[in-house]
Amino acid sequence: MMSPATHARPPVDARRRALVLAVRPEVDGGAFPVKRVIGDRLEVEADIIGDGHDLLRAVLLDRAPGQAAWRETELAPAGNDAWRASIELPALGLHAYAVVAWVDTFGTWRRGLEKKLAAGVEVSLELEEGALLVDAARARADDPVLAQASRALRERGTDVALSDELAAAMRNAAERGHVDRSTERFVLVERRLAACSAWYEMFPRSTGSGGAHGTFRDAERRLGYIAELGFDIVYLPPIHPIGRAFRKGPDNAPTAGPDDPGSPWAIGGPEGGHTAVHPQLGTLADFDRFLAAARSKRLEVALDIAFQASPDHPWVTEHPTWFKQRPDGSIQYAENPPKKYQDVYPFDFDSADWEALWSALKDVFVFWCERGVRVFRVDNPHTKPIRFWAWCLAEVRGAYPDTVFLAEAFTRPKLMYALAKAGFSQGYTYFTWRTSKHELSQYATEVCRTDVAEYFRPSFWPTTPDIFPEHLVHGGRPAFVMRAVLAATLGASYGIYGPSYELCEREPRPGVEELARNEKYELRQWDLEQPGSLRHLLARLNQIRRAHPALQHNRSLVFHPTDNDLVMCYSKRAGDDAVLVVVNLDPHHVHRAWIALDLPALGLASDETFQVHDLLGDARYGWRGARNFVEIAPEAAPAHVFEIRRFARTENQFEYYL
Amino acid sequence: MMSPATHARPPVDARRRALVLAVRPEVDGGAFPVKRVIGDRLEVEADIIGDGHDLLRAVLLDRAPGQAAWRETELAPAGNDAWRASIELPALGLHAYAVVAWVDTFGTWRRGLEKKLAAGVEVSLELEEGALLVDAARARADDPVLAQASRALRERGTDVALSDELAAAMRNAAERGHVDRSTERFVLVERRLAACSAWYEMFPRSTGSGGAHGTFRDAERRLGYIAELGFDIVYLPPIHPIGRAFRKGPDNAPTAGPDDPGSPWAIGGPEGGHTAVHPQLGTLADFDRFLAAARSKRLEVALDIAFQASPDHPWVTEHPTWFKQRPDGSIQYAENPPKKYQDVYPFDFDSADWEALWSALKDVFVFWCERGVRVFRVDNPHTKPIRFWAWCLAEVRGAYPDTVFLAEAFTRPKLMYALAKAGFSQGYTYFTWRTSKHELSQYATEVCRTDVAEYFRPSFWPTTPDIFPEHLVHGGRPAFVMRAVLAATLGASYGIYGPSYELCEREPRPGVEELARNEKYELRQWDLEQPGSLRHLLARLNQIRRAHPALQHNRSLVFHPTDNDLVMCYSKRAGDDAVLVVVNLDPHHVHRAWIALDLPALGLASDETFQVHDLLGDARYGWRGARNFVEIAPEAAPAHVFEIRRFARTENQFEYYL
Repeated sequence: MMSPATHARPPVDARRRALVLAVRPEVDGGAFPVKRVIGDRLEVEADIIGDGHDLLRAVLLDRAPGQAAWRETELAPAGNDAWRASIELPALGLHAYAVVAWVDTFGTWRRGLEKKLAAGVEVSLELEEGALLVDAARARADDPVLAQASRALRERGTDVALSDELAAAMRNAAERGHVDRSTERFVLVERRLAACSAWYEMFPRSTGSGGAHGTFRDAERRLGYIAELGFDIVYLPPIHPIGRAFRKGPDNAPTAGPDDPGSPWAIGGPEGGHTAVHPQLGTLADFDRFLAAARSKRLEVALDIAFQASPDHPWVTEHPTWFKQRPDGSIQYAENPPKKYQDVYPFDFDSADWEALWSALKDVFVFWCERGVRVFRVDNPHTKPIRFWAWCLAEVRGAYPDTVFLAEAFTRPKLMYALAKAGFSQGYTYFTWRTSKHELSQYATEVCRTDVAEYFRPSFWPTTPDIFPEHLVHGGRPAFVMRAVLAATLGASYGIYGPSYELCEREPRPGVEELARNEKYELRQWDLEQPGSLRHLLARLNQIRRAHPALQHNRSLVFHPTDNDLVMCYSKRAGDDAVLVVVNLDPHHVHRAWIALDLPALGLASDETFQVHDLLGDARYGWRGARNFVEIAPEAAPAHVFEIRRFARTENQFEYYL
Repeated sequence: MMSPATHARPPVDARRRALVLAVRPEVDGGAFPVKRVIGDRLEVEADIIGDGHDLLRAVLLDRAPGQAAWRETELAPAGNDAWRASIELPALGLHAYAVVAWVDTFGTWRRGLEKKLAAGVEVSLELEEGALLVDAARARADDPVLAQASRALRERGTDVALSDELAAAMRNAAERGHVDRSTERFVLVERRLAACSAWYEMFPRSTGSGGAHGTFRDAERRLGYIAELGFDIVYLPPIHPIGRAFRKGPDNAPTAGPDDPGSPWAIGGPEGGHTAVHPQLGTLADFDRFLAAARSKRLEVALDIAFQASPDHPWVTEHPTWFKQRPDGSIQYAENPPKKYQDVYPFDFDSADWEALWSALKDVFVFWCERGVRVFRVDNPHTKPIRFWAWCLAEVRGAYPDTVFLAEAFTRPKLMYALAKAGFSQGYTYFTWRTSKHELSQYATEVCRTDVAEYFRPSFWPTTPDIFPEHLVHGGRPAFVMRAVLAATLGASYGIYGPSYELCEREPRPGVEELARNEKYELRQWDLEQPGSLRHLLARLNQIRRAHPALQHNRSLVFHPTDNDLVMCYSKRAGDDAVLVVVNLDPHHVHRAWIALDLPALGLASDETFQVHDLLGDARYGWRGARNFVEIAPEAAPAHVFEIRRFARTENQFEYYL
């Protein structure tokens, strides 16, 4: 519409009388795609403004990836000049959509005729005008209905004029000379795992017996345990050869002993780089076997892709231009003065040979995709250019559209969101540090309920190998239970770093926010049978997540007020399925609270009697109305995960809960 | 950023590491301009995201109308990855702006050097790297500072490395190879009258004496009165020849007597059309004289442009294709079955000869601009294509950038907003029908405080010749006072249809929302000296508006809660000037209320003593803190317009109000 006054004649397309505005959903005016998964419908709205009172018509165009032709779906008015349509998303990949609108000349004429007939006004001239519209349509569509109508209207056939048959024929033959068309929007369609997933992180190095370095074969034996716990994804830290130069010792000691295994994130050795496997884990064939074993247990394997190199990485000598050379010929290592990370060389994404570097990095994903991996956890993506990711992820998805990418970015909020816009399926979140009711509800609302949810999918992790937060140091087992329940029910996606988490490992390394004897730098042996393990709780949580569609989405998250700042209450709902979670945020004391339920959010009437059934503890309570009381003792169970069961009455007065 | 994966090589411009997002203000992603007036500064913000921790630089580009070169203003970080700059808007017309950002290589290097020096790390390699950056800059800028620095850095000159002089020289010589640039946004700069104006509508036909048809000469004598009332604009209904065919009689009677003057909106007769004046008003020369007389009293004249024709309009015979021909050769008149408006022919904007029609309509504005008119009230713009207005208003502004357009559109909200987006300076509003505290505060907040205010400027009218609302029929003089105060203080722009308004004329025509003996169809004689006239109140209100910058803008409007639904309280503020309005919305009864003032919105501290000085009644009250009491008797005065006077104490303890 912008037209600086330089031309005396109106623009040639100025007669488009409809104006298509505010096509939604959209991200940054269409610069980035919104995200959906297979099975979702895409609900599109637009404001469509016409002058005066003429009727408009509008269609939603959409095009699946690889399709040349646009599909058309009629938009329907939804009040206040908004129009709406809903479409299925049949294929993985990037779909385009746009809205087209124009004046509905025949519909406007038909409405005018109806009005005049109702008012008893003479209409012969109107019928002749209608016949002219029909004749014009006959030039565009060879439809016998139109030919008949042309005659009938001239013979004063008002029934034909107002018939649904003629209306349909005229719709099909509509003149679309002066249509307004929105710019194109995009929707990235992924598989359901991209939106709903339970991750289990484990170091294969710690699966050996008797203190030996674990191998893929050892890790394979752990898969049954993880499957029993009900996770969807088993995620491995980098499995590549580990550098020797400047290798770190236990708990990040500056020098390593001869037997120290080093950090898996110091990638690359004489045995290879990002497309090789660490010899102590086994061979590529062993990895393939591990992958197949996982698949047989319905577990997906996620690899950790960390784009950095140890000084021993083959690329350091093969492609020295891919790293930043200093004036003395040395390679720039990572540093944060006075700290020096001489074991890590960042790639120089701005290198003169950048196209080859970018392609090689993209091919790392392709290499593992070719072996069957379809889930990647990407390390520190925020320290690489956003446009690299936009290109790289699109390329990988072009070849493997079912690939899921999790961004391990703990950084500034808008940078985390920019990575999501660039194509990451999921992102780590600040959940790890959010502890108060206010913080948790505000943050979860931001990522689950605002426009952010159109492109950013949160993954909630209570801990990671890099982050062991303060509140778990002192909260004991109840704190571990509470944070697991929060992560698994606030987020459709969440993750656990095990087995340290289910074993409630909580001795901190002084001065840093990490566990002591960090598995990043040494082998650990875990007693999975330890009493007090959370394995049964995690199994139950994952079972509940699978049984309850309400927990498989984020959009329906609602927080319900309580009169105790240490008791948090929220719900999710999908159709008839509603889950209500009540959490005591204080791991040390019993707390009581009155909850003021948002009954419509739960699909309940204001005076309805219903049952809340605790899916963790199996207790059942009959509740009625909005105001209800809870008392939660953290030692017993710091949270209720209630299924809402509506009370119903059959015709023969038999009462039961649905 | 959208890149469907079809190319194996990254796009050539993929190395742009900064990402410019969410440039604001903006309307519909830049499709329409935001609006400002001369004297405003434009505050621009953008989210600028860089990967990692490198420093960024960003500049705001802007270009005044007719300028080829972009001006550059440095943006400064404003927290959370938002960047901000503020620019003057030196000229009327359509300015373009855009944001450009890139990685600040030298700044990043300089910060790294500072860190290392602070940490006591060896920096000779860093200084050599700095020297290389300086040498590269010397190839772009011949600056002696750079030549000296190149030597100094190689001689380990850390003082020079960190000097502001070098930093400035490097900023000027910055390499801008991989910049990201936002799409262009636009700001339409108008004169102050477009944002702040008091309109007085009058029918010149009713200024004659002894029952004679008023002329421009008669109307000229009314200008002193209007100037005394303090209005900025005197607005005349259409001044063109009035059609004879199907002329309406008094109060819209279907037939007119021989002496009935007809409706000024039935435009065109044998004497001419939209560029002629009605012979009974005088000649074009008389109009010019009227215009000059108004100007001498600092009044602008607004003309009413109504794009429709009476059957007697010269264009009906000269350009029959500009109207819609029916199959029997007749011209389509306006109708709303069973009503027929045979005295009004709409133009066919979609005519085969549309370009000539559009140009002729545009030339109507140009014709009156050439005579010196710069303010137009456009009749029913919502029944003409939105793109016609976008083109036409831009064309007129291209030649006469100081032209102000008021849209008389009472229609669906998004269509009213679309007309504002297309270029109207101001628009009529639903204020006329909003009466309750809830309705008024919600609506005024929508048009004054939300994003709508970026493009839509409301004009509040208590009545028009077409609308005499129910609440004025029964509310008596207090209702007229109350609605005038609301209109003049809620909106920086407002209008009065006089003299009927100041004379509190309130006899309705039964069955329609209009006054009886509507001036649209007959001459009226008004006794301006009538006791009870609101002329002194209007004069006072306009004087207050001119004296108080707070009332000349809308953005600062804040509603303050009261405990009585019939007592509404709101304020506006500009710097030190704060005006607080308290209105009794019930014209029949005394009301009392406790007000809970939003003290920060008034620039007051929580425990501050201040005086409220009623600029209408001259009463003064000492108030302190947020909670204050009012009692308002509508017969005395249904509203207080308080100036907030802060209490101050001189050094010698003399106390006074500022």
